[in-house]
Amino acid sequence: MNPSIVEAFEPLFYPRSIAVIGASAEPAKFGNIILSAIMEIGYEGKIYPVNNEGREINGLKAYKSMKEIPGKVDFAILTIPASTVTGALEECLLKEVKGAEILTSGFRETGTPEGKRMEDEIAQIAKRGIRILGPNCFGIYCPESGLTILPGQNFSRGTGPVGFLSQSGGLCADLGQIAKGLGIHFSKMVSYGNGCDVAACDLLEYFFADEKTRIIAGYLEGVEDGPRFLSILKNKKKKKPVILWKAGLTATGSRAVMSHTGSLSGSEGVWNSALKQAGVVQVGSAEELTDTIYAFLYLPSNAGPRVALMGGGGAIGVAASDSLDRLGLSVPPLAPPILQKLKASFPPVGNSLKNPVDLGNPMIPPSMLRKVMEAGGEDGGIDTLMVIQILFYILYQRRHRERMDDRPLSQFSFQPELLKACQEVREKYRKAIIMILPDIVTDGQMIDLEIEWRRERDAYQAAGFPVFKSLDRAARALRNFLSYQRDQGL
Amino acid sequence: MNPSIVEAFEPLFYPRSIAVIGASAEPAKFGNIILSAIMEIGYEGKIYPVNNEGREINGLKAYKSMKEIPGKVDFAILTIPASTVTGALEECLLKEVKGAEILTSGFRETGTPEGKRMEDEIAQIAKRGIRILGPNCFGIYCPESGLTILPGQNFSRGTGPVGFLSQSGGLCADLGQIAKGLGIHFSKMVSYGNGCDVAACDLLEYFFADEKTRIIAGYLEGVEDGPRFLSILKNKKKKKPVILWKAGLTATGSRAVMSHTGSLSGSEGVWNSALKQAGVVQVGSAEELTDTIYAFLYLPSNAGPRVALMGGGGAIGVAASDSLDRLGLSVPPLAPPILQKLKASFPPVGNSLKNPVDLGNPMIPPSMLRKVMEAGGEDGGIDTLMVIQILFYILYQRRHRERMDDRPLSQFSFQPELLKACQEVREKYRKAIIMILPDIVTDGQMIDLEIEWRRERDAYQAAGFPVFKSLDRAARALRNFLSYQRDQGL
Repeated sequence: MNPSIVEAFEPLFYPRSIAVIGASAEPAKFGNIILSAIMEIGYEGKIYPVNNEGREINGLKAYKSMKEIPGKVDFAILTIPASTVTGALEECLLKEVKGAEILTSGFRETGTPEGKRMEDEIAQIAKRGIRILGPNCFGIYCPESGLTILPGQNFSRGTGPVGFLSQSGGLCADLGQIAKGLGIHFSKMVSYGNGCDVAACDLLEYFFADEKTRIIAGYLEGVEDGPRFLSILKNKKKKKPVILWKAGLTATGSRAVMSHTGSLSGSEGVWNSALKQAGVVQVGSAEELTDTIYAFLYLPSNAGPRVALMGGGGAIGVAASDSLDRLGLSVPPLAPPILQKLKASFPPVGNSLKNPVDLGNPMIPPSMLRKVMEAGGEDGGIDTLMVIQILFYILYQRRHRERMDDRPLSQFSFQPELLKACQEVREKYRKAIIMILPDIVTDGQMIDLEIEWRRERDAYQAAGFPVFKSLDRAARALRNFLSYQRDQGL
Repeated sequence: MNPSIVEAFEPLFYPRSIAVIGASAEPAKFGNIILSAIMEIGYEGKIYPVNNEGREINGLKAYKSMKEIPGKVDFAILTIPASTVTGALEECLLKEVKGAEILTSGFRETGTPEGKRMEDEIAQIAKRGIRILGPNCFGIYCPESGLTILPGQNFSRGTGPVGFLSQSGGLCADLGQIAKGLGIHFSKMVSYGNGCDVAACDLLEYFFADEKTRIIAGYLEGVEDGPRFLSILKNKKKKKPVILWKAGLTATGSRAVMSHTGSLSGSEGVWNSALKQAGVVQVGSAEELTDTIYAFLYLPSNAGPRVALMGGGGAIGVAASDSLDRLGLSVPPLAPPILQKLKASFPPVGNSLKNPVDLGNPMIPPSMLRKVMEAGGEDGGIDTLMVIQILFYILYQRRHRERMDDRPLSQFSFQPELLKACQEVREKYRKAIIMILPDIVTDGQMIDLEIEWRRERDAYQAAGFPVFKSLDRAARALRNFLSYQRDQGL
């Protein structure tokens, strides 16, 4: 453990003052976008715009150079042409700035000797007392301190346990948006681009040391020092879960890495086995990354692989059984006495209660569904309850059948009652409950269904129940969560 | 080829008159739901409700028995208790009804001797001059004749080339909704449930013979006569594409099949190789099924595996390259002279033009993106153009940056201009163009983005360009389409 890394990165994540070098009044320029974003998200420290003209920008007094700034500057954001970056960094050193992020591209990723030379110069400057992020990155998002990436003016100000590091700024920008809808909150998110100074190893070490970070996740293309990276992971193996998407492992992907961040991506087999040994939960897409982080946030530690699956509609039963089976999860038959009790509550035909518990149609009232949840709760052979609710049928078809097409969809919602059942079953049996709300409608007309879908999703989430759009995604996320638990001997 | 199967099924798909046996005035009962659905979707033939009371239902005169109906009845829909089904079918025979669908469950799928006995009786009755669908099914959707399944009152009345057969009614109900948003139209969709008479083999044969059906798709759990099924497929191998989801192939799935439709599902290895030999495009989820049907509808026959991939945001490039590579597609570097020409149109840094063509940010104007499309069109080493547009950035961020948050999102859309470019590039180079519009926002606030997303999706689709929500899904659908083309020697 290296406690000093937390101190060393303090000026990057919690700067009391920031200079935006290359600040611009032009809305389409990075120099305006990043300045505006930090102001909008509500950074409360001092902000000093710096540019050649020195005119006021966004109502802030601007400065022609770093040395004109009256106060102390902790952190600098650079959005100036590549050829002027080293000069600006020298000014930062004179001003005793402790950290900088360079958003500018045009360095090693260009594949030119000139690009490489300029990047090497930056790396040399970093050794003289300033920690540097980038170049060719989107910067730092730290909701606690009010820093945000390019563009991230509308990211959540809520802080949370996820530390995210990424060689791709675009993925950070996407993930910040996706996260808002899913109640995923970050301690810090760092787009480090070419990573000429601060890169994967330092960030990994920081996140392990950072008390605000409980879950580490990341997107990597190449790693600057593979052995060091793996050794950090192995040393900290049981400390915090690490979820990584290592991209660029195919021949085509590897070539794309080179022109994206100028890294070398390495061979697939080597990475897969090294990450496995290091206890990393490896994912392969933005969707899987998000779903897995989400599962780590919402699933209780006693979630297990033996699933009671319940809902209406037979294909759900068979297809879902296949999905779970393929992911190493099981859908064991309910214990005979529990099944008998359940059978007494339901009609003798039109359903299949063995598990998957297919109630025959999706409009089963929550009071009935609750009996199935209770059965799964009571059954010692079941760890996890998965409840499928297809809102289209419950809301839209039910409204229609009751000849009430003029009423708002929320009046037909099972959610308040079902959420109460989920909470009481969780309280009583202490088992994991996962909601699956497939969205099967995307035609232009039924937008009210999408609005209500989001409202219900938010309600379950707010009560701590994860919601997935498909059973396949839920099952994959659960599998990933369990692989970590197993690996840790939890 | 058996031409008489088309004639034999004429009364099922194009009945001039229908009896709904078990019609009810109670909105939650199947006997009302199916009657209402057929009336709402606009079936234009004669409808005769039949039930014990004989009172008017939904404004239609009802009859106490089949024999009281004055006119001829082509087709009967049965929603009465299982024990009364055979009696009602005998009445149908007397009335010379030619086809029937039995929505009622409680037969073979219960696993009881009584259930099996009743189903065997139905199968015997079918041999006496009436074709029977079900029991335990949702029935027939045929937009051309105005028949619809349970529930399917709001399915499209537009007719199209897809013939769909399914052992699961729930999947039919879902697919009908999904299809509306995707512009997928059906010749016929048949939920055949337990399939005691009409089942997979007959339906497959029918769809091969039916002139209205160009693409055959289906969801199977078990098949009543595997050798016959495979022999139909092999005999017709080059006639029409067949896309099948064979579920229940895992141990867990197989057990669920038994209690869903009472079928035996068979072993995975045997099915996989048999379907492959028979030229079937095999899929493994509802999502893949839909995406693949969609690809067959929208992709031109010269779509190929060499993809030019273009858009903004670096992770898209690397991750996308991995995705395409893993699916056997390629992202070859553009030919040197074409790349040179392209480079002259873009700034020297902040992008990567080799392919994937990463333009650095998603707000690239369509006029610029068009140059990349032209390059892909011109390059003899490229078959297919994939264009990624993340609408969140283009619409929401652009509006925000231009300080115009009060304007509707559609004012910031690139779609009209980009669609024009797509059309002109397609016209000029005759290459497949696939749009990818990832949706990264699902938080409750930004519903206007979802509305605009659907509008843009509809605009591209209406012009014949397929739109996918992710590159992974687009690539998988293209791969499936190409596997068929290759198999057919096209």
